[in-house]
Amino acid sequence: MSAAARTSDVIDLALAEDVGAGDVTTEATIPADARGVAGVVVREPGVVCGLDAALEVFRRLDPDAEMDVRSPDGAAVSDAPATVATVRGGYRALLTGERTALNLLQRLSGIATTTRAYVDAVDGTRAAILDTRKTAPGLRALDKHAVLCGGGRNHRAGLDDAVLIKDNHVAVAGGIKPAIERARAAVGHLVKIEVEVDTLAQLEEALGVGVDAVLLDNMSPETLRRAVAMVDRRAVTEASGRINPETAPAIAAAGVDLISVGWLTHSAPVLDIGLDYRG
Amino acid sequence: MSAAARTSDVIDLALAEDVGAGDVTTEATIPADARGVAGVVVREPGVVCGLDAALEVFRRLDPDAEMDVRSPDGAAVSDAPATVATVRGGYRALLTGERTALNLLQRLSGIATTTRAYVDAVDGTRAAILDTRKTAPGLRALDKHAVLCGGGRNHRAGLDDAVLIKDNHVAVAGGIKPAIERARAAVGHLVKIEVEVDTLAQLEEALGVGVDAVLLDNMSPETLRRAVAMVDRRAVTEASGRINPETAPAIAAAGVDLISVGWLTHSAPVLDIGLDYRG
Amino acid sequence: MSAAARTSDVIDLALAEDVGAGDVTTEATIPADARGVAGVVVREPGVVCGLDAALEVFRRLDPDAEMDVRSPDGAAVSDAPATVATVRGGYRALLTGERTALNLLQRLSGIATTTRAYVDAVDGTRAAILDTRKTAPGLRALDKHAVLCGGGRNHRAGLDDAVLIKDNHVAVAGGIKPAIERARAAVGHLVKIEVEVDTLAQLEEALGVGVDAVLLDNMSPETLRRAVAMVDRRAVTEASGRINPETAPAIAAAGVDLISVGWLTHSAPVLDIGLDYRG
Amino acid sequence: MSAAARTSDVIDLALAEDVGAGDVTTEATIPADARGVAGVVVREPGVVCGLDAALEVFRRLDPDAEMDVRSPDGAAVSDAPATVATVRGGYRALLTGERTALNLLQRLSGIATTTRAYVDAVDGTRAAILDTRKTAPGLRALDKHAVLCGGGRNHRAGLDDAVLIKDNHVAVAGGIKPAIERARAAVGHLVKIEVEVDTLAQLEEALGVGVDAVLLDNMSPETLRRAVAMVDRRAVTEASGRINPETAPAIAAAGVDLISVGWLTHSAPVLDIGLDYRG
Amino acid sequence: MSAAARTSDVIDLALAEDVGAGDVTTEATIPADARGVAGVVVREPGVVCGLDAALEVFRRLDPDAEMDVRSPDGAAVSDAPATVATVRGGYRALLTGERTALNLLQRLSGIATTTRAYVDAVDGTRAAILDTRKTAPGLRALDKHAVLCGGGRNHRAGLDDAVLIKDNHVAVAGGIKPAIERARAAVGHLVKIEVEVDTLAQLEEALGVGVDAVLLDNMSPETLRRAVAMVDRRAVTEASGRINPETAPAIAAAGVDLISVGWLTHSAPVLDIGLDYRG
Amino acid sequence: MSAAARTSDVIDLALAEDVGAGDVTTEATIPADARGVAGVVVREPGVVCGLDAALEVFRRLDPDAEMDVRSPDGAAVSDAPATVATVRGGYRALLTGERTALNLLQRLSGIATTTRAYVDAVDGTRAAILDTRKTAPGLRALDKHAVLCGGGRNHRAGLDDAVLIKDNHVAVAGGIKPAIERARAAVGHLVKIEVEVDTLAQLEEALGVGVDAVLLDNMSPETLRRAVAMVDRRAVTEASGRINPETAPAIAAAGVDLISVGWLTHSAPVLDIGLDYRG
Repeated sequence: MSAAARTSDVIDLALAEDVGAGDVTTEATIPADARGVAGVVVREPGVVCGLDAALEVFRRLDPDAEMDVRSPDGAAVSDAPATVATVRGGYRALLTGERTALNLLQRLSGIATTTRAYVDAVDGTRAAILDTRKTAPGLRALDKHAVLCGGGRNHRAGLDDAVLIKDNHVAVAGGIKPAIERARAAVGHLVKIEVEVDTLAQLEEALGVGVDAVLLDNMSPETLRRAVAMVDRRAVTEASGRINPETAPAIAAAGVDLISVGWLTHSAPVLDIGLDYRG
Repeated sequence: MSAAARTSDVIDLALAEDVGAGDVTTEATIPADARGVAGVVVREPGVVCGLDAALEVFRRLDPDAEMDVRSPDGAAVSDAPATVATVRGGYRALLTGERTALNLLQRLSGIATTTRAYVDAVDGTRAAILDTRKTAPGLRALDKHAVLCGGGRNHRAGLDDAVLIKDNHVAVAGGIKPAIERARAAVGHLVKIEVEVDTLAQLEEALGVGVDAVLLDNMSPETLRRAVAMVDRRAVTEASGRINPETAPAIAAAGVDLISVGWLTHSAPVLDIGLDYRG
Repeated sequence: MSAAARTSDVIDLALAEDVGAGDVTTEATIPADARGVAGVVVREPGVVCGLDAALEVFRRLDPDAEMDVRSPDGAAVSDAPATVATVRGGYRALLTGERTALNLLQRLSGIATTTRAYVDAVDGTRAAILDTRKTAPGLRALDKHAVLCGGGRNHRAGLDDAVLIKDNHVAVAGGIKPAIERARAAVGHLVKIEVEVDTLAQLEEALGVGVDAVLLDNMSPETLRRAVAMVDRRAVTEASGRINPETAPAIAAAGVDLISVGWLTHSAPVLDIGLDYRG
Repeated sequence: MSAAARTSDVIDLALAEDVGAGDVTTEATIPADARGVAGVVVREPGVVCGLDAALEVFRRLDPDAEMDVRSPDGAAVSDAPATVATVRGGYRALLTGERTALNLLQRLSGIATTTRAYVDAVDGTRAAILDTRKTAPGLRALDKHAVLCGGGRNHRAGLDDAVLIKDNHVAVAGGIKPAIERARAAVGHLVKIEVEVDTLAQLEEALGVGVDAVLLDNMSPETLRRAVAMVDRRAVTEASGRINPETAPAIAAAGVDLISVGWLTHSAPVLDIGLDYRG
Repeated sequence: MSAAARTSDVIDLALAEDVGAGDVTTEATIPADARGVAGVVVREPGVVCGLDAALEVFRRLDPDAEMDVRSPDGAAVSDAPATVATVRGGYRALLTGERTALNLLQRLSGIATTTRAYVDAVDGTRAAILDTRKTAPGLRALDKHAVLCGGGRNHRAGLDDAVLIKDNHVAVAGGIKPAIERARAAVGHLVKIEVEVDTLAQLEEALGVGVDAVLLDNMSPETLRRAVAMVDRRAVTEASGRINPETAPAIAAAGVDLISVGWLTHSAPVLDIGLDYRG
Repeated sequence: MSAAARTSDVIDLALAEDVGAGDVTTEATIPADARGVAGVVVREPGVVCGLDAALEVFRRLDPDAEMDVRSPDGAAVSDAPATVATVRGGYRALLTGERTALNLLQRLSGIATTTRAYVDAVDGTRAAILDTRKTAPGLRALDKHAVLCGGGRNHRAGLDDAVLIKDNHVAVAGGIKPAIERARAAVGHLVKIEVEVDTLAQLEEALGVGVDAVLLDNMSPETLRRAVAMVDRRAVTEASGRINPETAPAIAAAGVDLISVGWLTHSAPVLDIGLDYRG
């Protein structure tokens, strides 16, 4: 898989841009030795994600910061508001890290919550919900973790860990068959090959050469059904193309193995989460 | 201002996580010397933002890549689809950089488009639309650039370039007055001080000590109107608290100088943008 | 504030350039398990500064190194020689880190001592002594900390955390008024604006537009007195221009709020400090 | 030699701490396409040093910046003020880089000027003026370059490129002889050994074992003369210990090869240098 | 694939450790403006590899350095000595970069030469020669490039881009079947699975569950032949276990697809290559 | 000495390239809380080297990993197989770090073993075995440590910590005498000078000017004997030129001080070492 930034690097970057030379307000108003306790409160129903990352933010500012977790990453909150965790540490560390911690928690919980809505929509079918590479720049590993928290599955991590032949590759290579053959000759024996097809004719060509997976792009449920029948378990089937929770059930009912959704990571709204300080 | 990651660093990070050891599909199917041309197509109405960043992505992969821009950052697209720019370069560079470039373009244009909706909603009032620190971790500078593209204005860049006293600072310091006084004693003569107030009584206390700006949090339009009258131009007035385009006009009509909106950067959906290859 | 190098980064840099691949002398002559104790001795009267940084140097080489501090940063030593602290740790760590620790201690104590001389010179007036951006490259944060130790105050940290309009900005912008207006339009509501004026006519122009502070450059005490009267508390007043401890009292007596002095950080001689090993 | 920070790294650090997120004043008041020309004016007699570094600062901000040099690094300016170079480039780049460039120029020229005073003081003797490791943290390579500009010579670059046995090494090793013997056994055949001696008895012990150089610390001219006679060309002789331009001639007349002076790099005042913009 | 260090990073590291603060010999003896020309001479028969890397070394020291290549990476040299390339550039750059360039060239050509010996040994069979993860720390990408130059193929780049279940994984998971099932459940649909088997019984178990490839470890040619028959094209077959050019033909004749050889990258002796300066 | 990469940096690099985004096999098959114990088994006679580095690899993955060492770095193993150490830690950490740890251990032990063979070959003479700069890029410090483990000695660390004048320096400088003189004028008083000579005439020229050491390149034992006599202890003598354990005794018998051997670090085969898991 590709060189995704580690969570600790993302946190360094986020603290650098938010705190910079220091939180002048907190340093001026809060004594250096004050201790604080705050609840992490989820204010609307959803799936929690990002608690580990949030704790790591506070620990960067106070190595002794601690978190008691009641509802860990992946837990669903139905009765809001709900205190999913309690964090203790230096008061300055809590206030200075609050925004960075919440920015992570809110984004990741938002992705997990949206993912869960898709997963629920296809419940009872064989289809799994899959993410894409449409993640926020620098946040791929965290965004993909959030998809797992919401019950989804992860597609390839980047351009370097599998072959996915798209329309432009096919156009330049001179067809689906030569594109697949070139890819097979170029990669090692442990690299899988998926090919995007827009029509059943292309699908037939791909199956003729042999591939590990097919990406069925922008097909109607009916066409998908015929595609799944043509594939007949010889390859993994993935459907994509602006699928939303309303259209997902029909897509899933067509029998595909996977439904990939860019919206999970590029447009999910945040989940409303805040810190409530005590005492 | 704080140590925001530079665009070039964000692009390094994004390419590292997306491309990693190499785009095996493109390397296998596209000749190294093939040249390509692609239109940057905005597929729904909105405000363009991120073209410079997108070009920088392609240039990282092909130093000779070029972009002809028709609708620069900040331009509004009303008739979609519209080709806002054309990019030329090595075909491999275009295909390998496409996802990273589009992830940036779509996110930033989404923020700019949402910002513009708020700006239009308060048109004709004295209120400006302001962003917050609720940006995606590592993307603060880019997210704030997108707010400017949409016609908004930027709040402070981070915790280190101005004082913004919030409720917890006040609580620990023992009141609004001592909190402001401590801050004034601690910072240099070129640092401004803003204080968050939840009630008119707090506002009066703040004005009594003297501050540069007041953050009027979660007040109704009627209360805001009274607050603005109390302030009487002695400080900048900023309203905040889950304001949406529907509620913004009434808030603005109350006479505040600034309306800050976290939604701009934490939950704006992407604008649909793609690359269309030619020939 | 700007992205000042953190103390830990400066220490990394300093140890890298001084120790490099290893202190061959110490490794050859001192057993790896020898422990040492040394007094930090200030050999002439002055103000101590840099003890924390010095301890951090030794801790980088021996994580268990400890320091007992008698006269902390900011303390004045009048009877020299005086042992202001005692450091214990691996003998090798002490000898290898000695030069780097003393380079920091001597420089910072030198700045603090020189600052104190200026502060004492204006004692009894309203004027505070202010540093400038004339710091050693890479050492801004440490140099500014030393000014605080000496009783001075800090000007802005860098070019990015406030507006300070100088003569060349005025010349290109076409006058003080347009320069201030452009700056005000460009920056956020929490950024202050200071303008440098060389004459009372310029001062009048600046006050007419309104600014947060005025830098009165190279004015005589008499002119400064008139300037302070013209400002009449509408802005903070700062005097600058090769002021030394002899001329400072007259400048301060003119009633300015601040006197900024480049000499503090660019030319203060070091304070003589050494390590005396025991036993 | 040790891992001294490269000039380009020092400049990165200095610009990061001075410019940070941007020079808000210059961006607001100076058009992006304005070009500027400025003279580098030395305002008091001295030795110029740092012009290359200053140009590199401007080039970091405007890759097309150029400098015409009349008096290069090492040149002496006797009739001040004198324009030693002219720099051309984007006006914004000049204004934004000015302070960083001048901080370097002024410090390095100050060191070169002070070095020259010592060099002149010992003119006509065999003694060369040598720097020490008492440089500003992070600036060793630049500070040592300035010493060369002033006509001095460089001592070892750091702890790793030669053996210099000092009093504490001798104390722990159990005498000068065992200290030298341990060092000789530990290092490679291309590493030289110098030993610090405080008395003629110690010198005799050192010469008995054989060393490449001796550091004669805090000796009177008369004692130095006897030491030089004892050495009789069997080792390089270096004198040290708070030597100033007044005492240097007598030290040099004692016949030592080298006089090392910490003051050159830790306490030399800056040389007054400014930028004068044209047109 | 994993985050292999880029060639440019390896070269930075190698130059940092070899050149450090500067090549004092070359700087003292070679004029700064001298130009040089040198032939890259292969002094014994073998396969050339690393010319691009060598040129990059020289370009780091002289951006205008150029190389005329007669026998590019992968070319076989049978009549030695042979000049495979000519490099031109600053004389100092050539001398200072020589050792680093040759260290790369000699190592990579050594690996390519050894690989070619194995490839030739199995010529005429279906077996390809494969590398392993037994590369020099930090040099994986370069070492694997050298294997390609010698006619071999690359195994997975690291632990993150495919599943390879070894004996200890099997032991802890409780058998080959549960190990494969756990892996399949954990990874995405584009990740292949290979399993190491030591016996035909284990092979049967693995084929029963279904895998993409089998690693047949330390089997005799006869056992390999039976294993290949059992697999019957249902999986890729890889043989390993201290195979040398003498034993390779019999292994290959058993019908395996791949033979992996750690020796290629961990013990191949260098190829003797030098620089011959002209004029 | 030059800026050799620290062991910790090499390990970071090696783990980054081998583990990347994660060891998917181990994560899928080994429980996160499983503990493991493994013996470090040397499978053929040789000298152990690299145990500290190996432990550091495991500690990077499990900070609580521990190693019991029976035969430390430098110990000779004559009865193989022999368990030289036992490592305990998280089972995942052991499996994920195994290859990186063994790559280091095997390489360094291979170098130490080969060095020992040379050292034994010259036993009873005054000659020491010396390494060269022909190390694997990035691994200089580790490779040189391995030479010490094998009983050899280290030459200079890089181009910056001593002068070694070679044939091309002599050619451009116009002779051995001017080359030495230029070097002496350029470097500090603590830098030694060695010169490579190919003939006795050159040796005479070098001795006439005076040098610290002479590199006698590619001379026969008889010529070396005459050279040593000519030198007569006025300089250190070093022999070089494709010397192997068979030819080394005659070279040593010629009376040289040092024999330098590139083969030690560029072509020593690895020592066969593995991990044997228990329980």
